[in-house]
Amino acid sequence: MPEPDIFYILGNKVRRELLSHLTCTECYFSFLSSKVTVSSTAVAKHLKIMEREGILKSYEREGPFIGPARKYYDIAISRTYVTTITPNIFWYRGLDLSERPLEKLSIDISEVSTEEKDLLKLVNSFVEMTSELEKVLMALQSIESVRDGLMQNIKRRYLEEIGDMTQLAILHYLLLTKKATVEELSDRLNLKEREVIAKAQELDRFIPLKIKDDVIEIDEERLKQKIGGDNHGGED
Amino acid sequence: MPEPDIFYILGNKVRRELLSHLTCTECYFSFLSSKVTVSSTAVAKHLKIMEREGILKSYEREGPFIGPARKYYDIAISRTYVTTITPNIFWYRGLDLSERPLEKLSIDISEVSTEEKDLLKLVNSFVEMTSELEKVLMALQSIESVRDGLMQNIKRRYLEEIGDMTQLAILHYLLLTKKATVEELSDRLNLKEREVIAKAQELDRFIPLKIKDDVIEIDEERLKQKIGGDNHGGED
Repeated sequence: MPEPDIFYILGNKVRRELLSHLTCTECYFSFLSSKVTVSSTAVAKHLKIMEREGILKSYEREGPFIGPARKYYDIAISRTYVTTITPNIFWYRGLDLSERPLEKLSIDISEVSTEEKDLLKLVNSFVEMTSELEKVLMALQSIESVRDGLMQNIKRRYLEEIGDMTQLAILHYLLLTKKATVEELSDRLNLKEREVIAKAQELDRFIPLKIKDDVIEIDEERLKQKIGGDNHGGED
Repeated sequence: MPEPDIFYILGNKVRRELLSHLTCTECYFSFLSSKVTVSSTAVAKHLKIMEREGILKSYEREGPFIGPARKYYDIAISRTYVTTITPNIFWYRGLDLSERPLEKLSIDISEVSTEEKDLLKLVNSFVEMTSELEKVLMALQSIESVRDGLMQNIKRRYLEEIGDMTQLAILHYLLLTKKATVEELSDRLNLKEREVIAKAQELDRFIPLKIKDDVIEIDEERLKQKIGGDNHGGED
């Protein structure tokens, strides 16, 4: 079984918040520290633990002003973890997102009954369902690998073409959560609610958004219109 | 986002081992304690933590002999957890296995390129891939729900029809891991290696196994022959 210390890392709310900020932008210590509510000593401890476990790597780089080099942190792994826990089953697995092992998948489990009485048939069904599970895990791995590559490209292009970190942070959050309330974004970005709305309106000039009743989401219809139906996904 | 304390629970090796034993059989305190290498005080502490977090529930029942009632433990949740962590993406989700939300799935992501230069097209691809992700997660949820039901039924029927706990423990382990070494099973079951082989040979009378070079696995070919090709899975 794979590197299970990921659970230890994820088992702490502050570490999860730090990781979440790290996926959006280049982060140095005092920036990260300003984003969470615990002391900077606690932040330093969590960063050290994550670096020790190989989840983060750090590097020093000159800041924009004269002074000592800043220490930046990057996430050092690209994995999806799956775990099932029930009264009958417990397993976990890490999937490496440098691979796209399966591009097409078709499954149909509608005929499988769990009420079968014959022990051998039950065991056979379980074995067959496990091979369906393996395929679904490969599809999950492939999709997350693609989404990771897309997000990397989106972040780079947004900064090159538009260059606004706060707009990008809103876009990044919306892409991952589908929709967000103004309050949620205000907490996350440490901005006043009216500043969030102003920034979302700026973002909307480049990426179509729906902003309504304090809920913000990507406007998929206008997005498709804008790219003129020339879409690239496996949409059905 | 859902009950993230599952990560805290899973972030400890002893707790993972206890959970693994709990999925196989009814467990009382001293049985669990005998299966792990830490002190019984530590086991009591871990069980208490898991009960407090709602992962376990306990109940008292008379043992087979005269004396005080024994305290038994059961896993109280049925969920699959998925989390992705990369330099660009971090999210996690719990899926409820009381549901089978999707029985058929067909996806094809072979046309999606992450190298696209147009920002809007990149965002559109990400949105489309996220909807493919949602389908794959529903398929995962359905498959794990089915496997949970099958395993519950397999455990019950094995105990009713054959009644050997050690054979069942080997079968349970093989179904979840696909194959196991004799050494691995010996560690897990706290049996001598030759006892593991003897038990596997008994199990093989009911469920066909391959036992070769210290590796034991389910013999899928003989299993299919035994049920006469009348299979129930969504095999292709």
